[in-house]
Amino acid sequence: MSNRIKKAIISISDKSEIETILKALKKYNIKVISSGGTSKEIDRLGYKCTDVSKYTNSDEILDGRVKTLHPKLYAGILSKRDNKKHKKELKNNNYDEIDLVIVNFYPFEKTLKITKNHQKIIENIDIGGPTLVRASAKNYRHTTVLTSPKQYEEFIIDLEKNKGSTSIELREKLSKEAFNLTSYYDSIISEYLNKNNDDYYPEKKTIYANLVEILRYGENPHQKSAIYSKSNELDIFQLSGKKLSFNNYNDIYSALNISKSLPKNNGTVIVKHANPCGVSINKDNLESYKEALACDPISAFGGIVSCNYKITKRIAKELNKLFIEVIIGIGFDKESIQILKKKKNLRLIDASKLEQKNFTHVTSHFNSLLFQSIDNKKFNKDNFKVVSKAKPTKKIFNDLLFAFNVCRNVKSNAIVLTKNSSTIGIGSGQPSRLDSCKIAIEKMKKFQNIKKNDFIIGASDAFFPFIDGIETLVQNGVSAIIQPSGSIRDKEIIKFADELGVILVFSNTRHFKH
Amino acid sequence: MSNRIKKAIISISDKSEIETILKALKKYNIKVISSGGTSKEIDRLGYKCTDVSKYTNSDEILDGRVKTLHPKLYAGILSKRDNKKHKKELKNNNYDEIDLVIVNFYPFEKTLKITKNHQKIIENIDIGGPTLVRASAKNYRHTTVLTSPKQYEEFIIDLEKNKGSTSIELREKLSKEAFNLTSYYDSIISEYLNKNNDDYYPEKKTIYANLVEILRYGENPHQKSAIYSKSNELDIFQLSGKKLSFNNYNDIYSALNISKSLPKNNGTVIVKHANPCGVSINKDNLESYKEALACDPISAFGGIVSCNYKITKRIAKELNKLFIEVIIGIGFDKESIQILKKKKNLRLIDASKLEQKNFTHVTSHFNSLLFQSIDNKKFNKDNFKVVSKAKPTKKIFNDLLFAFNVCRNVKSNAIVLTKNSSTIGIGSGQPSRLDSCKIAIEKMKKFQNIKKNDFIIGASDAFFPFIDGIETLVQNGVSAIIQPSGSIRDKEIIKFADELGVILVFSNTRHFKH
Repeated sequence: MSNRIKKAIISISDKSEIETILKALKKYNIKVISSGGTSKEIDRLGYKCTDVSKYTNSDEILDGRVKTLHPKLYAGILSKRDNKKHKKELKNNNYDEIDLVIVNFYPFEKTLKITKNHQKIIENIDIGGPTLVRASAKNYRHTTVLTSPKQYEEFIIDLEKNKGSTSIELREKLSKEAFNLTSYYDSIISEYLNKNNDDYYPEKKTIYANLVEILRYGENPHQKSAIYSKSNELDIFQLSGKKLSFNNYNDIYSALNISKSLPKNNGTVIVKHANPCGVSINKDNLESYKEALACDPISAFGGIVSCNYKITKRIAKELNKLFIEVIIGIGFDKESIQILKKKKNLRLIDASKLEQKNFTHVTSHFNSLLFQSIDNKKFNKDNFKVVSKAKPTKKIFNDLLFAFNVCRNVKSNAIVLTKNSSTIGIGSGQPSRLDSCKIAIEKMKKFQNIKKNDFIIGASDAFFPFIDGIETLVQNGVSAIIQPSGSIRDKEIIKFADELGVILVFSNTRHFKH
Repeated sequence: MSNRIKKAIISISDKSEIETILKALKKYNIKVISSGGTSKEIDRLGYKCTDVSKYTNSDEILDGRVKTLHPKLYAGILSKRDNKKHKKELKNNNYDEIDLVIVNFYPFEKTLKITKNHQKIIENIDIGGPTLVRASAKNYRHTTVLTSPKQYEEFIIDLEKNKGSTSIELREKLSKEAFNLTSYYDSIISEYLNKNNDDYYPEKKTIYANLVEILRYGENPHQKSAIYSKSNELDIFQLSGKKLSFNNYNDIYSALNISKSLPKNNGTVIVKHANPCGVSINKDNLESYKEALACDPISAFGGIVSCNYKITKRIAKELNKLFIEVIIGIGFDKESIQILKKKKNLRLIDASKLEQKNFTHVTSHFNSLLFQSIDNKKFNKDNFKVVSKAKPTKKIFNDLLFAFNVCRNVKSNAIVLTKNSSTIGIGSGQPSRLDSCKIAIEKMKKFQNIKKNDFIIGASDAFFPFIDGIETLVQNGVSAIIQPSGSIRDKEIIKFADELGVILVFSNTRHFKH
C-alpha cells in the first residue's frame, strides 16, 4: 500500500499562505479539487484545480449550503486503503481516494463579534466544512487533514521528508487538532443558542477555550498547569517583568475582582495568597496606595498591588520602595514604566482593557463541575436598612458600603474593619466568625495608631449568629456595623446595638466567598 | 408556505420508543426514509419506509461509513422553504424537502467505557449522524431535529397541537439541544485523542459535562447555580435529608479531598467553610470522630463530618448529639440510617463509589480558565529529610506525615498542630505565616488541655521565611516541625532547631492551596 497523496480537496476561507501549499502539492503532482472562492484564488495564482461540482457531477445549490456533501468525496476520504472490499467499492462507483483535506470553517466566532443579526449568524454555521474535517480526521490512518495555515509549514516539511506522503505521527496529530477544532466550533454555536434562549444550564454543556500559555507549573512545582482564554487573549497585558506564574494569575484576578468593584480611578488593593491585605479609596491616588499599604505592611511584602488608576511617576516612585511581585494599573505613563522596569523581575500588568462581564464561574472537584453566576450584584442603597436608633451620616453610610464591598471579596468567614474608606483590619478564612473578628482586631491593633475619636466601621459577609461578635468589635472601638441580618437573634442584636449607641445597618444580601 | 412535515429521515441506534414516533408519523402521513438497522426495525414493527440508498440512488458502502452523505438528503434538509430559488433548485434536481430528522450517534462515549481497542473506538466516531443533525439544527426555521427518545413526547404533543407541523419555539429549542449534543460528542472525541497523545493543554480546548441538577442558588441567594458531572452522575449518593446546596457541595468535596488522602477506614474530617476544623486518624472509628471534634467543637457546629469508614450504630449515636448539616460515610449500616434519618434535614452521603482519579482541576476568573493537575502527589518518605540532630521515632515520623498531609489541604498560609495523629490547632488563609501560627496556637490553647509531656507536632504548607514562626511554635510546646524548606535562612533555622532540641523535617515539596 502506497501512502502517497494523490488527491486533495481544498475549501478555505482563510486564504493566507495558500500559494505555499499549492507549490508543495504541485511538486508532488497532487491533484486539487476545490470550489467557489478557493477555486477562483487557485486560478488567479495560476494553479490548476477541478471544481467540486464538476468532480461530483452535482451542482452547488442553495447559495452554497450544499456543495461538498457528496458520497464521491466522502467515500474517497473515508475508505480504508488496506481494505479490499473498500477498494472494490470505490472502483465500482468510479470514486477516487482523496488523501488530503484542507478546510477552514465559516467564521462563526468572528461573525458573533461583528453582528447581532441572528439570521446572519445562523448562516455562518458551517455544515460541509466540519463534515469534511471530521471524516478525514476519523480516517487519519490514511488521510491528512489541515484546518489552519499554522499547520502548513509542519505539513510541508513532513511531505518533503516522506516524498509525497505524510507520516502517521503527523496525521494522528492533525486528527487530534481537527477534533479539538470541531468541538470548539460547535461549543461556540451551542453557547450562542443557549444564551439566545436564556438557557444557562442545559442538559449537556461544553466550555471552550484558547490556550494562552502553558505555565511552568501550577500552585505547586509538582503540578502541571496552563491558562486559557474564552476569547483569543486574556484582556490583561504584561508590559514588563518575569513570566507570570499560576499563583500570580490567581492573585492578580483576586485583586482585580476588588479593583473592578471600587469607584473608578481612586482605589488601591494589595493582595497576598488570594486575599486582600489592604484596600483603600481616596481621590489622591498616592494616599490610597499608602493607606492600603498601612493596613498590613508586613503581609504586603512580596504581594500584588492593583491600582484602578493610571500609574504615574509619583506613584511609581512610591511603589518602588516596596518589594512586590506584580503591579497592576489602568495603564502606566512612560516615566512610570522607566522607573519600574528597572526591577527586571517585577511584573507590570495593564488591566485597562479588562471588563467584568456576566461571566459564569466554574470550578471542578473530582468528577463534578460547579457553575455559578458571579457575585457582581450592584449594591442597592434602598435595600440597606439602618436598624439602629443611631443613624449614619452620608459619609458614614458610604464608608459602610465600602467596608461591606471589600468584605464580599474576602474569604469567608470575613470581617473587615475600616476607617475613612481604608481597611485597617481584615479577618479571613476562619470557620468561626468570632475568630475572624479577633483576627481583624489584632491586625488593627498591631499596625494602627487608633485614637479615641477615630470612627471605625465593621463589616461582616454573613450575619452574626450571636451577640459576641458584635460585642467584641464594639469593645475594640467599632462604632458602626454592617451585616446581612438573618439570625434568629437579630432583634436581640439590634437592642444590643442601641444600648451601646452603635450604628447598625442590615444589607439583606449575604456574600459568602470560599 | 405550509409548515407541514411531509418527509422524515430516521437513523437511530437507540430504538426505544421508536413505535411511539412511527405511530405519530403515520397519523400525519409523514413518509419515512431510513437505513440499516433502523429500516429493519421499522419493517419488523409493520411500518413503511424507504431505504436511504434507494432514495438517493446511491449504495451504502464502506461498511456503512458512507450512507447518508448525499446532496439529495442535505438539499432536502437545508433548503429555505420561503426562498424561490431554493425551491426551484430542489425541483430541478428532483429533490424533496425533508422536514424531520431523527438521529442518534454511534455510541462513542459508551464504547470508551467498554473497550480500550483504539480501532474499535475510532470506528465509533459517527460522521453521517452529526452532519444530519447539524444541518437540520442549522435550518431549524424549517426543519425539526430529534436526537434522543427523551424528546419524543414533547415533539408528539407539539405535532398534535399543530396538526402535523411543529412550532418554531420547539424547533428552536431542539436546534439548541442538537448543538449542545454535537459539541458534547466531539468534545469527548477530542479529549480521548488528546489523552492518547499526552496532550494536556491543546491550543483549542473544550470541556464537556452532564447536568446533575440546577441548584436553588449559588454561594449566595442572588447567584444562579448548577452542578454537572463529567460522567453521568456524581459518584456520591445522597441517602437522606434536605436537597444539597452549592455550599454543601463545596464543603463536601473539600472534606472528601482530605478523607481520600487518609489511611482507609480510620479517618474523620470535619469541615466548615471549605476548611477543615478537625481531622483525626485512629483505628477506633469512634475515637477518631471524637478527637476530630475536640479540635474545635464550636466551629464544628453546623459543619460537615466526613468519615472514611462505614457508619455504624455506635458512630451514628455519637454523631446524632451534634448539629451538623451533612454526614459522609463509606456506606452506612441499616441501624445507623434509621437513627440518623430521623433528623429530616440532615443530609447523608455515601461516598464509597467516589474515586480520586487524575482529574484536571479548572477554575475561571473573568475571561480566563486556569487548569492544573490536582495535588495528589504521594508522599515519598525518602524525600523527607530529617535535618535536625534530634531524630523522630517511627511513630513521630508517621505523625509528622499526618500533620503535613492535613496541612496541604488547608488554605494557605496553613499551619497545622497535631498530637497523636489528631489535629489540635489549625491556622488557615492568612497572608502572613506567623499569623497562621498564632491562630493555630490560640485554637490549641482554647480547646486543649495540654500537659507538659504531650508531644506536639507542627506542619507548614510552605517554608518558614524567618525563625519567628518556628520560635512561636516551640515556645508554645511544639517539639517536632515539618516544612518544605527553601528559605535562604534554612541553615539558620536548622541551627535554631538544634539549639532547642526540636525535631525538624524538610519535605522538599511545597503544598499551597488557595
